[in-house]
Amino acid sequence: MSQRPKSRPPNSHSPPSSSSPPASPSLDAKSQALTALSLAPTMPRKSILKPTLATLLSLLALYAFFTTFLSTPDPTHLPSSSLQSSPEKSAPLRIYMYDLPRKFTYGVIESYAKARGGSKSPADDVSRLKYPGNQHPAEWYLFSDLTRPDRDDSVVTRVLDPEQANLFYVPFFSSLSLVVNPIRPVGLAGDGVPVYSDEEMQEELIHWLEEQVYWRRNNGWDHVFVCQDPNALYKVVDRVKNGVLLVSDFGRLGQDRASLVKDVILPYSHRINTFKGEVGVGDRKSLLFFMGNRYRKEGGKIRDLLFQLLEGEEDVVIKHGAQSRESRRMASQGMHTSKFCLHPAGDTPSACRLFDAIVSLCVPVIVSDYIELPFEDVIDYRKIAIFVDSSSAVKPGFLIKLLQGVSAERILEFQQELKKVKRYFEYEDPHGTVNEIWRQVSLKLPLIKLMINREKRLVKRELTGPDRSCLCSNQSGIQTTL
Amino acid sequence: MSQRPKSRPPNSHSPPSSSSPPASPSLDAKSQALTALSLAPTMPRKSILKPTLATLLSLLALYAFFTTFLSTPDPTHLPSSSLQSSPEKSAPLRIYMYDLPRKFTYGVIESYAKARGGSKSPADDVSRLKYPGNQHPAEWYLFSDLTRPDRDDSVVTRVLDPEQANLFYVPFFSSLSLVVNPIRPVGLAGDGVPVYSDEEMQEELIHWLEEQVYWRRNNGWDHVFVCQDPNALYKVVDRVKNGVLLVSDFGRLGQDRASLVKDVILPYSHRINTFKGEVGVGDRKSLLFFMGNRYRKEGGKIRDLLFQLLEGEEDVVIKHGAQSRESRRMASQGMHTSKFCLHPAGDTPSACRLFDAIVSLCVPVIVSDYIELPFEDVIDYRKIAIFVDSSSAVKPGFLIKLLQGVSAERILEFQQELKKVKRYFEYEDPHGTVNEIWRQVSLKLPLIKLMINREKRLVKRELTGPDRSCLCSNQSGIQTTL
Repeated sequence: MSQRPKSRPPNSHSPPSSSSPPASPSLDAKSQALTALSLAPTMPRKSILKPTLATLLSLLALYAFFTTFLSTPDPTHLPSSSLQSSPEKSAPLRIYMYDLPRKFTYGVIESYAKARGGSKSPADDVSRLKYPGNQHPAEWYLFSDLTRPDRDDSVVTRVLDPEQANLFYVPFFSSLSLVVNPIRPVGLAGDGVPVYSDEEMQEELIHWLEEQVYWRRNNGWDHVFVCQDPNALYKVVDRVKNGVLLVSDFGRLGQDRASLVKDVILPYSHRINTFKGEVGVGDRKSLLFFMGNRYRKEGGKIRDLLFQLLEGEEDVVIKHGAQSRESRRMASQGMHTSKFCLHPAGDTPSACRLFDAIVSLCVPVIVSDYIELPFEDVIDYRKIAIFVDSSSAVKPGFLIKLLQGVSAERILEFQQELKKVKRYFEYEDPHGTVNEIWRQVSLKLPLIKLMINREKRLVKRELTGPDRSCLCSNQSGIQTTL
Repeated sequence: MSQRPKSRPPNSHSPPSSSSPPASPSLDAKSQALTALSLAPTMPRKSILKPTLATLLSLLALYAFFTTFLSTPDPTHLPSSSLQSSPEKSAPLRIYMYDLPRKFTYGVIESYAKARGGSKSPADDVSRLKYPGNQHPAEWYLFSDLTRPDRDDSVVTRVLDPEQANLFYVPFFSSLSLVVNPIRPVGLAGDGVPVYSDEEMQEELIHWLEEQVYWRRNNGWDHVFVCQDPNALYKVVDRVKNGVLLVSDFGRLGQDRASLVKDVILPYSHRINTFKGEVGVGDRKSLLFFMGNRYRKEGGKIRDLLFQLLEGEEDVVIKHGAQSRESRRMASQGMHTSKFCLHPAGDTPSACRLFDAIVSLCVPVIVSDYIELPFEDVIDYRKIAIFVDSSSAVKPGFLIKLLQGVSAERILEFQQELKKVKRYFEYEDPHGTVNEIWRQVSLKLPLIKLMINREKRLVKRELTGPDRSCLCSNQSGIQTTL
C-alpha cells in the first residue's frame, strides 16, 4: 500500500473551535475477556458487571429510540428498569468522544504548523489553533461539532459518561497526520526538530485504545473512526476495521475491511467557491471543464487518455494543474462558466472535484467505474450527474457527442437538482455535511447492536462459506434485471 | 432441497380478520427497462416518468423521515417540492400491500380446508375463514395487521397508492401453501377435487409479480416476502431473493440469497400456553425438559445423541413426541414446571420450541450452532438463554453438570429477563411480534434505498472479488478478540 498521501493541502484556514476538551472519565482499564464462551451466562463474574450494565443501558436506550421514533409506546410495556435508568430524552445516537491525548488532535495541528516553520511550543489557547484547509477536513468538523457547547439542534447527543453511549468516537486527526511532513521539508533537520511520524502516531493510537475498557468490551464494533484521506490509518486499519470507518472511498481498503453496510462514505470538502448565481446555461459558455493532475496512478491513468482525446476540442477547457490558490481561482472561474465538469478517477475512485462541480452547479460527468458516493440512500445521483463507463469515455468523439446532445432544458433540470442537494456537501452548513454524517452513522446502530449481541453468544462452529452476517447485494457488480 | 414441509400444523384456529381486502389500483404494467445504461440521465423517456416520480416521492419521504426523526428540520432547508408532495405525517415505513389474486391469500385457507374435507366453494364472507393454527402464522398476522381498519398505533403506515409506498408487501400465504395437502390425503382423489400444488402457486406468484410495474422498477429490492417455514417459496426463492425475506432461519437458503443485513429473522409462534405465574424455582421441580421429535435430518441428528445421553438422568424429562393437541398439553405442563428447556436444532437450526420455552419462563438451553435469533439488535439472548456448542453438549455429564451448577438466584435473573422480552414473541400482543417485525423491516429502508439508487447508476466494470456492497462481519464465524 502506498504510504504517500494522495494530496497535499494548501495552507488556508478553517475557523477553529473554542470549546474546551471533553471531561476525562476515569475508566477501569482492567482487561475483560469477552471470548465466546458459551457458558458465560451461567458463570457471572464481577469483572463483567460494568460492561453488562452498559450493554443493558444501550439496549434500553435503543428500546427508547425505537419506541420513541417508530411507534407510540405504551408505558405499561416499557421494562420498568428502563424507565429508571434511561438517559433523559435525547437524540437516538448518543456518542462518547474519547478524550484522546492532545497529540492526536490539537497536537497534530501544532506539528503541522511546526513542520512549516510555525510555533514550536504547544498553544496555550487551543482556540487560536487553525486547522489547515484541505480536502479531508471531516475530522476537524466532527470534532468541532462534538465540542461545541450548544448541541440541541444536532442529530447526535454527545454524552460525557461512556456508560450512556451507544457509540464511541475516536477523534484522531488521521488525515492531517498523514500530511504533517511537507513534501519538501524547509530546513528543519538542522533545527533539531523531531521528524513527525504518522506511522508511529497510528501505532500509539492503537496502544492507547487497547487500554480502554470500552474498546475491548465489544471488539471495537461500536467505535467510529474518521480516515477520510484514502491513506489515513493505513498501517493500523486491520486493527480498527470492526469499527465504523468514515472514508472517502474503498480504494485503499481491502475487501474484508470496509463496506457500504458497515461504513460511511464522506464527501470531500469542496475546494473552490460555491456558485451563488441562479440556474441557467446562458453564462456557461464552455461545454466541458476539467482542471487537475493529468497523471495519476491506478484508476487515474484514464486521465491522460482523456486529455489526449479532449485537448483541442471546441468548447472544452481541459488543463493540467496542481492544487494551489491560483489554480483554485482558475478552477472556480471555469466551473462556474461551464455546463459540464469532468470527474475522472484519481489514484482512488473519488476526488474533491466532484464536490467542486456540485457546488458550482456544473453537471458532473463521472468517469470512475468504482466510485462510491456519499449519502446515496437520500441522493439519487442520476438526477445530478452523468455516469459514463471508462471504456466508452475513451472512445473518440463519444463524450463530446453525448454532452452536445443534452438539451438546455435537461441541463436546467440537473442544475435544479444540484441546488437541492448542495447543502449535503457544505461542511459549514448547520444542516449540511456534518449532520448528515452523524445521521448516516446512526443508521448503523441497529446492525452494530445485532453484531455485538450475536458475536458474544456465538459458539464454535465450522463454516465452509462466509458467515451469514454477510450480504453481497450483487456479487458481479453488473446490474441484473429480473 | 427437500420439498417436504418441516412440520405439519394441527388444526387449531386463530381469529380471522374481518377487514376488507385492499383497494386495487390500476397499474400501468407496461415494461420499463431499467438497465444500467450510464447515459440514461441524458435521454429522458416518457416511459420512465412514473418511476421517476415514485423514486422522487420515496426520496422525499425518506427525507421527511430523517428530518422528522433524526433532527430538528429547518423549513427553509426543505426542498420546496417535498413540502408539496410529501404524504401527510405518518410512520416512516409506508407499505403498499399488493391486492394479490384471492387464491394466494384467502384461497390458500380454503384449499387447506377443502383438502381436509371442508367446504368446497369459496367463502362469501372472508371473516368466516379460519387460518389454521401452526408454527408459521406470521403471514396471517402481518396480512391481518395491514388489513385492520384503525392502524394509527402501528409502526408501519399502509398506503393504498403505490406511488406513496417505500416498500411493497407480497402477502402470499407461502407457509400454509406448503402444507395444504395433508400428509395422508383423506379420500379426495375420488371426489375429483384437484390436487393443490404449492409449486404451481409459487410459479404463478412470480408470473403475477412480473406483470407489476413496481416489481420491475427497482429489481425487487423494495419488496417484502414472508416465507417463515424454512421451505416456503423454495422453488422461486432465487427470483425473489433481492427482496426482504421474512424467514425463520437461513437453513434452506443459499449463501447468496439471504443475510442478516437484508432479511429479518422471525420467531415461530409458540405452540404451548404462556406461563401466567410469577418467576420462581420452587414449583419447577425438573431440572431440564425436552419433548419433541427424536429423529431429525441434518443439524437435528444431535437430538438422538442427546436422548441417549439424557434419558434416565434424574430430574430430566426427555420425551419423544410429535405435534398434537395432547402432546402440546403435556409439553405445556412440563415446560411450566422445569427450570431449563432444551432447544436442539431441528432439520434447520431454528424451531418453535425456543419460543415455547421463552413464554414458559423456562430458561432455554440452546444447542444449535448455526441458529439465528429474532430481533437480536434489541435482545441480548445471553441474558435469557444458555448457549452450548454441540460438541460440548454431547459429552457425557457435561450438560447436567453445567445446569446443576446454575444457582437459583441466577435462574431468577434469567426468568426476570425472559419476562421482559416475552412480548416480542407474542403474535397476538399489539406491542408484540407484528410491530417488531415491521420495525425490523423499517430498519432495512436506508440500505434498500442506497442499493436501489446505486444499482441504477452503476456502470459496467470488472470485479475480481465481491462487490463493495458486501459485508462479512467475521468470515470465519469464530469470534475474534482484539
